Amino acid sequence: MVRSRVSDAVIRRMPRYYRYLVDLEKNGVERISSEKLGRYTGLTASQIRQDFNCFGGFGQQGYGYNVTDLKNTIAGILGLHKHYQVIIVGAGNVGQALANYTNFKDEGFTVAALFDTQSPPVGTFVNGVLVWPVEKMEAFVREHQVDIGIITTPQSVARKIAERMAEAGIKGIWNFAPVDVSLPEQDVCVENLHLSDSLLTLTYHLNEDPAKKE
Amino acid sequence: MVRSRVSDAVIRRMPRYYRYLVDLEKNGVERISSEKLGRYTGLTASQIRQDFNCFGGFGQQGYGYNVTDLKNTIAGILGLHKHYQVIIVGAGNVGQALANYTNFKDEGFTVAALFDTQSPPVGTFVNGVLVWPVEKMEAFVREHQVDIGIITTPQSVARKIAERMAEAGIKGIWNFAPVDVSLPEQDVCVENLHLSDSLLTLTYHLNEDPAKKE
Repeated sequence: MVRSRVSDAVIRRMPRYYRYLVDLEKNGVERISSEKLGRYTGLTASQIRQDFNCFGGFGQQGYGYNVTDLKNTIAGILGLHKHYQVIIVGAGNVGQALANYTNFKDEGFTVAALFDTQSPPVGTFVNGVLVWPVEKMEAFVREHQVDIGIITTPQSVARKIAERMAEAGIKGIWNFAPVDVSLPEQDVCVENLHLSDSLLTLTYHLNEDPAKKE
Repeated sequence: MVRSRVSDAVIRRMPRYYRYLVDLEKNGVERISSEKLGRYTGLTASQIRQDFNCFGGFGQQGYGYNVTDLKNTIAGILGLHKHYQVIIVGAGNVGQALANYTNFKDEGFTVAALFDTQSPPVGTFVNGVLVWPVEKMEAFVREHQVDIGIITTPQSVARKIAERMAEAGIKGIWNFAPVDVSLPEQDVCVENLHLSDSLLTLTYHLNEDPAKKE
């Protein structure tokens, strides 16, 4: 049975469910109804049931969801049963912060190398991760099994770096540079995360006419 | 004339238009049609016209948009005509990276202070920004005009910090901790940015059945 393509909105809610389920499990909750999960996550019970139905549905009528089972199922859907080898190109503030981000290690992501053109000096270590000259990136990717390339370079070079990553064989790119990267023809998954887009959404709301707010 | 409430999806596309318009202006482009803007941004011309109509519409039939005027109008909608005083609570990797993020300075955001309980040591400077003990946050906010509070603390204390920010009078919160913060009763705008939700969207796609990809 082939599942139909799941919408982007549903996919983007799955990590949120996962986050809440990890918390519920930590707090010793064993089962939960869609209604309660809705109250936690700020969604409606029917939305949650619809979302889960995209993946076949996980609940039992009258019982709800087993928290650990649901958490593990969603972890599987999100690919968290695997381990990911990651490189970061751009060892500036954001690149260094990500290299130091212990949460990623806990979730199965290992930063194998940082690449940059200048500072921090090539050959130094950031949180035990060596900084390499960016010219060595392709060779590194071919020699190691690199699953994800993170781009934290200035905007001007981000697209070029993404193309180089794709040519070297990286299949997943997480881009923080303030430019939209997409590589539809190369079978590469790209997730663009624009910090300033999020900040400007906040300033929009700060300046909204109070009468129009919810 | 009261504008009706603009949907979240439209609001979230405005920073993206702004980003592209800044680029177009930098590249000397003076005017642009919705079709061309659509090709740039990956949206359809009719989507763009609909989005802009939520704010009254900016184009002229047969002319398109004047790039600089449109950029300035959207900057105004996003509140970028103002200057924002920002504090960051949580001077770990992400907090330090944000304190160092020069893009924010260029866009009118000044980080006035960092707050933490431990490292980097209180009293040290990160990119010229002093690290204060978190107990002093309320006093600092009352003495200075603080518009936005950024939360980069561990998950366990994020909600408490958000409540303390709101009580001290901060009206905008940008939360990076992996927990959803909302303060609907206190007239505080909150934007949650979850790095790992974005990363898990990428791993979802990396593990998707190729036949189901677009």
